[in-house]
Parts: sequence; C-alpha cells; structure tokens
Amino acid sequence: MNEPVFILKGNIIYSKSLTELAVCEHGYLVCRDGRTEGVYQTLPFKLGGNPIRDYGDCLIIPGLVDLHIHAPQYSFRGLGMDMELLEWLETNTFPEEAKYKNQEYAKKAYTIFSDNMRRSATTRACIFGTVHRAATLLLMDLMEKTGLITYVGKVNMDRNTPEYLREETQASAEETREWIKDVLHRKYKNTRPILTPRFTPSCTDELMEELKKLQMRYSLPLHSHLSENRSEVEWVKELCPWSEFYGDAYDRFGLFGSDCPTVMAHCVYSDDRETARMKENGVFIAHCPESNMNVSSGIAPVRKFLREELNVGLGSDVAAGSTENLFRAMAHAVQASKLRWRLTDESLAPLAVEEVFYMATKGGGRFFGQVGGFEPGYEFDALVLDDSRLSHPQALDVRSRLERMIYLADEREIQAKYVKGIEIDLS
Amino acid sequence: MNEPVFILKGNIIYSKSLTELAVCEHGYLVCRDGRTEGVYQTLPFKLGGNPIRDYGDCLIIPGLVDLHIHAPQYSFRGLGMDMELLEWLETNTFPEEAKYKNQEYAKKAYTIFSDNMRRSATTRACIFGTVHRAATLLLMDLMEKTGLITYVGKVNMDRNTPEYLREETQASAEETREWIKDVLHRKYKNTRPILTPRFTPSCTDELMEELKKLQMRYSLPLHSHLSENRSEVEWVKELCPWSEFYGDAYDRFGLFGSDCPTVMAHCVYSDDRETARMKENGVFIAHCPESNMNVSSGIAPVRKFLREELNVGLGSDVAAGSTENLFRAMAHAVQASKLRWRLTDESLAPLAVEEVFYMATKGGGRFFGQVGGFEPGYEFDALVLDDSRLSHPQALDVRSRLERMIYLADEREIQAKYVKGIEIDLS
Repeated sequence: MNEPVFILKGNIIYSKSLTELAVCEHGYLVCRDGRTEGVYQTLPFKLGGNPIRDYGDCLIIPGLVDLHIHAPQYSFRGLGMDMELLEWLETNTFPEEAKYKNQEYAKKAYTIFSDNMRRSATTRACIFGTVHRAATLLLMDLMEKTGLITYVGKVNMDRNTPEYLREETQASAEETREWIKDVLHRKYKNTRPILTPRFTPSCTDELMEELKKLQMRYSLPLHSHLSENRSEVEWVKELCPWSEFYGDAYDRFGLFGSDCPTVMAHCVYSDDRETARMKENGVFIAHCPESNMNVSSGIAPVRKFLREELNVGLGSDVAAGSTENLFRAMAHAVQASKLRWRLTDESLAPLAVEEVFYMATKGGGRFFGQVGGFEPGYEFDALVLDDSRLSHPQALDVRSRLERMIYLADEREIQAKYVKGIEIDLS
Repeated sequence: MNEPVFILKGNIIYSKSLTELAVCEHGYLVCRDGRTEGVYQTLPFKLGGNPIRDYGDCLIIPGLVDLHIHAPQYSFRGLGMDMELLEWLETNTFPEEAKYKNQEYAKKAYTIFSDNMRRSATTRACIFGTVHRAATLLLMDLMEKTGLITYVGKVNMDRNTPEYLREETQASAEETREWIKDVLHRKYKNTRPILTPRFTPSCTDELMEELKKLQMRYSLPLHSHLSENRSEVEWVKELCPWSEFYGDAYDRFGLFGSDCPTVMAHCVYSDDRETARMKENGVFIAHCPESNMNVSSGIAPVRKFLREELNVGLGSDVAAGSTENLFRAMAHAVQASKLRWRLTDESLAPLAVEEVFYMATKGGGRFFGQVGGFEPGYEFDALVLDDSRLSHPQALDVRSRLERMIYLADEREIQAKYVKGIEIDLS
C-alpha cells in the first residue's frame, strides 16, 4: 500500500469543525503522496484504476493525537494511584525513571511501550522520556520503527529532584545539546526532538536560559507541564516570585510559545491572565482528564479554552492516566466536563462527543501541521475501525457508531492504521 | 469441574475487610459443595487426591457483583450520552424499552446481553427488565442458562410515562402477580424475581400499595432508584408532598428495606435523614459512578456511607453506564471520589483500591448472602485473571497486579469463572 495513489472505502467520518462532523457513508478516501486528495461518495472517473482497499462497513476516522504521554511511566500504568501529584512523583515516578539509566532496562520497557503505541489508536504523539540521553535515543529509535510520527524529549531537571535523578545545570544543557546533535545525525523520518523541561519546580532559571539558547539555535518546539495541581501552582509562586502567573515563569525565558510551537499539559488552574497569554502565544493545551482525576488534580475549564479559541488537544498522560487508549481519553473528557459543570460552574457547558473527537484529531493534530482531518491536503493519518465486536440488535447510524467507539473501543477495533499514507504493522 | 471437592491454584486475593486485602500467593482455594472450604498456602494432607486446576501465575479473586444494570438498555450502551437523566429517559430509554413488547426483538437483544454478561467479570447481578412480562421471562430464561446468579425484575410504571409504555395501575399489579407465578413455575436454579418499581415518579401510591401486597405474599426483595438527580428529587417532593425525603416515599409503603432486602441505585443526593433511614432499614446502595458522570447527576458521598457502615456495592448501570465491565466501575468509583474530594468536600477522603474492591465483591455480595469472599462457608464465586497481556518489564506483587486489573482489565483477562462452584462457559 505504498503506491503514490490508493483509496480506502468505508464509512468516513471526521471533524468539519469543533461542533460538526463530516460523514460520508460507504465513501472513498483518496490518498496521494501521503496526503488526502479527497473524500468522495462516488469515485471520480479520473481516479479509476488506482488500488482500492474495501473495508466494508468499517468506520474510517483520522488517526488520534496524544499531546502528552510519558514513555518511562508506561511500566507502572494503573499502579500506585492512591496519591496526589507531588507525592506520586516522589513515590512512583522518580524511582521508576531512575531505572532508565540502565540501557538494558530501558530497552525492555521501551520495547513494550513502542509496541503498544504501534497497536494503539494513536498516530501522532508528544512523548516525555527521562533525563537520560542514551535511553531517550533508544526510545526514539524504537518509536521511529513504529511508523508513528512523534516528538520525543530528553527531560531536564536540575532542582527539587532526588539526588539519583538530578542533573547539574550545565551538564543538563550540555547533554541536551549532545542529544540534539545525535538526533540530527540519525536522520529520523518520523521522530523529532522536542525540548522537555519537566516543569518549573524542577528547572532553575539558569537551566531555562540554557534551554532557550538551544531552542533558538535548533528551532525546537517545547513540551512541559502547567498549572496541574494547586500545591504545584503555589510552589511556582514561591520559586519564581517575579512571575505574574505560572505560565509567565516559562514566558520570561521565551519558553511559552512566543518563538516555537509549545505544548503544555493540564492547565487545570490556568487563570484569565494565563489563558490570555496562551492564546496570544498560540500555546497548545494537552487536556488530560483521566490523569487529572487519578492524581486528584481537578478538572480543567476546557469549555472556556474552546470558547476563547485556544488550541486544545487531548493527552493520555500515562502513567497518571492509566492507558494510552485515546478513546478512553475522549470519554473521560466528556465525563469530567459534566462533573465540572454539575459541581463547580454551570456557566461552562459540558463537552459533546463532536468536541472531544475534534480535540483528539484536529485539535492536537494542528501541532503537527495539517493533521487530524480528511480535507484535501491533510497528511493522511487514518484509522479503520471494525466495531462488529459490539453486537447490536439493530442497525446504527455512523455518528452513533462513532459515539459508541468513544466509550467502548480499544485496540481490538483497529483493523488498519495509516500514518502519512503508510500502513502501520499492527501485529 | 462439578466434583463435590475441587481446588484452584493461583495467586488468591480477596477482601478481608473494607480496608484490608487477604493475599495468598501460589495458594490453594478449595471448593466443597459450591462453597469455599478454605484458602491454604500448603494443601492440607486430608485434601490430597482431589482434583487441582493449576492456574499458574494467574490471579484468583471473588466474582464481581453488579447491583444495578438495565438489560434492555444494553443495546444502546455508549450512545446518546449528551443529555441529563430525565431528557435521556424520554429520548433514549423509553423508546428502546418499548421495543421489548416484541418478543423477537427481545430475544435478539437479550441474547446479546446474556452472552456478554456470561463472558464478563460479573457473577451476580440485580437486573432491570422492562414492563413486559413475556420479555422479562425470556430474559430470565436466558440469564438462567448463563449460570450467573441474578435477580431480575419486571418493571412497573403507571404514571409520567409515555403512553406506549404506561401500564394501568391494576393491570401492572396483575401482570406482576402473573409474572411471579410464571417464575415460580419455572423453578429456576439461578434466577430469582425481584420487585422493580422504576422509581417514584413512575409509580402511583396505589401501585406502590399493590406491590407491597405482592411483596408480603411472596417475600420478594426490591430494586429501584433513589436520589439520582436534583430535578428528580424535586419532582418526588412535588409528587409526594407528605414524604420527609425521597426514600421516605418508598418507606411509607413499606418498600424501603424494612421487611425485605432492598437495593437502591445511586443515592447521589441522599441527605442525613435518608442516610439514617437506609442504615436503619439495611438498604443496599448500588453506587454507579460512571452513570452518575454520564448523565451529569453528580457524585455520591460514598465515603460517608462507608463511615456510617451502610451496605454499599457497585452498579454498572448500563446504559447510563457504558459498560458491564465492573473493573471499569471500580476505577470510576475511585476517580469520582477523588473529584468529589477535590471539588466539593475535602472532609470525605477519596476511596482507595481496597475499598472499591470490597464494594465490588463483599459489599454487593452480601445482598446475595455469603458472597464476595473466600472465607470458609462463602459461596464459591471466583474469577481467574490472566494479566499477561499487560506486559511489564519487572515482576509485580499481587496487590499491584490487582490494582492494575482495576484500571485496565476487560473480559480478555478472564481465564475462568465459577459461580457457586460451577464453572461458567466463557466461549
């Protein structure tokens, strides 16, 4: 299926806008040179003769985008959940991440991670590694082989970190520079480096300055955490008394989207000023609803972000989220928004299925370019879903079948997956 | 495996109490005549010679108990979620339930339901049918064949119901009486009738009186809804101005646990008086966290119920809940309790893994007698879980593996299932 032009046939469904789905039942989705050429109810005459893969009554949707996931935490997904963020980091996360100093362990764990990502509904992702350069390169090698298109980051941490993980400031910058050089040298097709300061509490001002230099030199995007938990927000105020709000502590160093694309996970406690700055700077928000439940962070005001037309995508945030399954993230996003509406603020209406589907496709996709839709010119990321495992006594319309997938699908439903026009091996 | 004595070998884990797990690694779980004889680290000499089924490194846990599920709604699980309770009933539920007047449709739909229940983690359940006598009997026939032990109810509704589903008061009572006679005549082994007035808004006082007569005559337990949604609670106040609180509207008719075992789903808005009355009457609460999210009801104060030592179990509440998978219900119960703590009331601590596991086993199991544990004398309901699908770079302890199941297991993990000592066909 690596012909320059090929065609998928099935029930095609994607987001026309935040609130509207485009549906083409038993239609044709045409890929040319890795991009969508068009969606057709009847195949145009000029396209005749190109190979057609007929997926029968399957659904065909854009690939899903995970804007925030931690590869080294995949090994403890679904474990150690009875804690809040800062305790959870100390107890579960840091000791596990320290193991990735050992390449053998890293290989074992990252092989499991990359295999499962390959078989998942995810086609694009922004991935946290650890502080370790070698392990992060290994992770990138493995992700490259999956065929998924990802941004992967070597993490930086030079304060408020257990001795066994803490980097010296200059060494952290130097290792990052070497890592970037290594990455450039490997000439990956699918895998790109992204600057990844863990979060303000773990990075000194000096380190932030160093990272800014690297960003300017190599034009790198950035991936970090923002306003996830109340104690964390308070802590940043103490650490950076000069900051107007948490995001400002990144922005002062030019690391908040003003120069390069930036994705910030969580934004549960982003106030009006922070929201305005994110809008101004085009920051992408990775909304991670399950994580925000599991480590008792709260519920992000996503409706507000959408109303103000910020860039919002979804993140699984494994392992504060228990699964890489982004269908689950969509359902959690709807559920969390309903609880927020009911319990906290009835002025922010719950999210609808259309909106979370948009966030999981086009919303996060935009971080990668023209990704997440089937309009002409979009990069050809597609998932073919066979929902026949979920028997139903009557026929369902395509929109209903998509909703049911959001609540109930897992990797068993994925019949085929394409990234930029290349079919992924799901075995 | 229907020998009077047989033995399962594996990593046995069950609730000793609400907060404590009993774990026996690579131990022996002995069944005699459908009941647990004991759990042993070393098999006692006197038990030698009995058949042993060795499940290797699998987990063996008690079967899970679903205190609240609607069989006719299974067909629209994961569909039509963007609504609140009362609108959702009118739009999705009532039109679907009306179809069960047609036995052919009922057979098709209930076959899917009963097959999936058979393959699920559930060993016992309290099940809503519809108002239709014939379809409810059909459902009971099908559930009987699964081998699961269930209470199934023909629903009663004689007001505030669309014409096409509403019963006349006397006819409703008469049909219920005939249904009970039919059930007694069929001499089911596993399937028992339970009175099922839908909820106070759908049942006149006169109908409640008739149901009480039937309860006294046939000694029947009762299954209904309570304090799920704010508008519903207000509505009951209008309909029963004489009631002190919602539950009192059942209690005045003697239908609130004073004479027969009673399970009430939801209790999101139960106030102190209602809670006290439930405790006094021994009412079982079916906590349905996913449903309470999906139809924007809110979050029940489960910590308060547990502190006051009420009977609390879990319900999937399909189709306001999207899945019969009770592992998911346990995870949702933890998640919802964290959000309630964070957003509403920090005096009620989040639920821990041990507590939701207790609720899903012993908590709900008690409604069925000595069910939900592996202490000597408990009815032998067991699930054998093979968690090898979830690869891990290192060995995990048994408690951690149980936690991971709560977040990530589905029917793929179920290697074997026993109900009252009989192995269930999972094919």
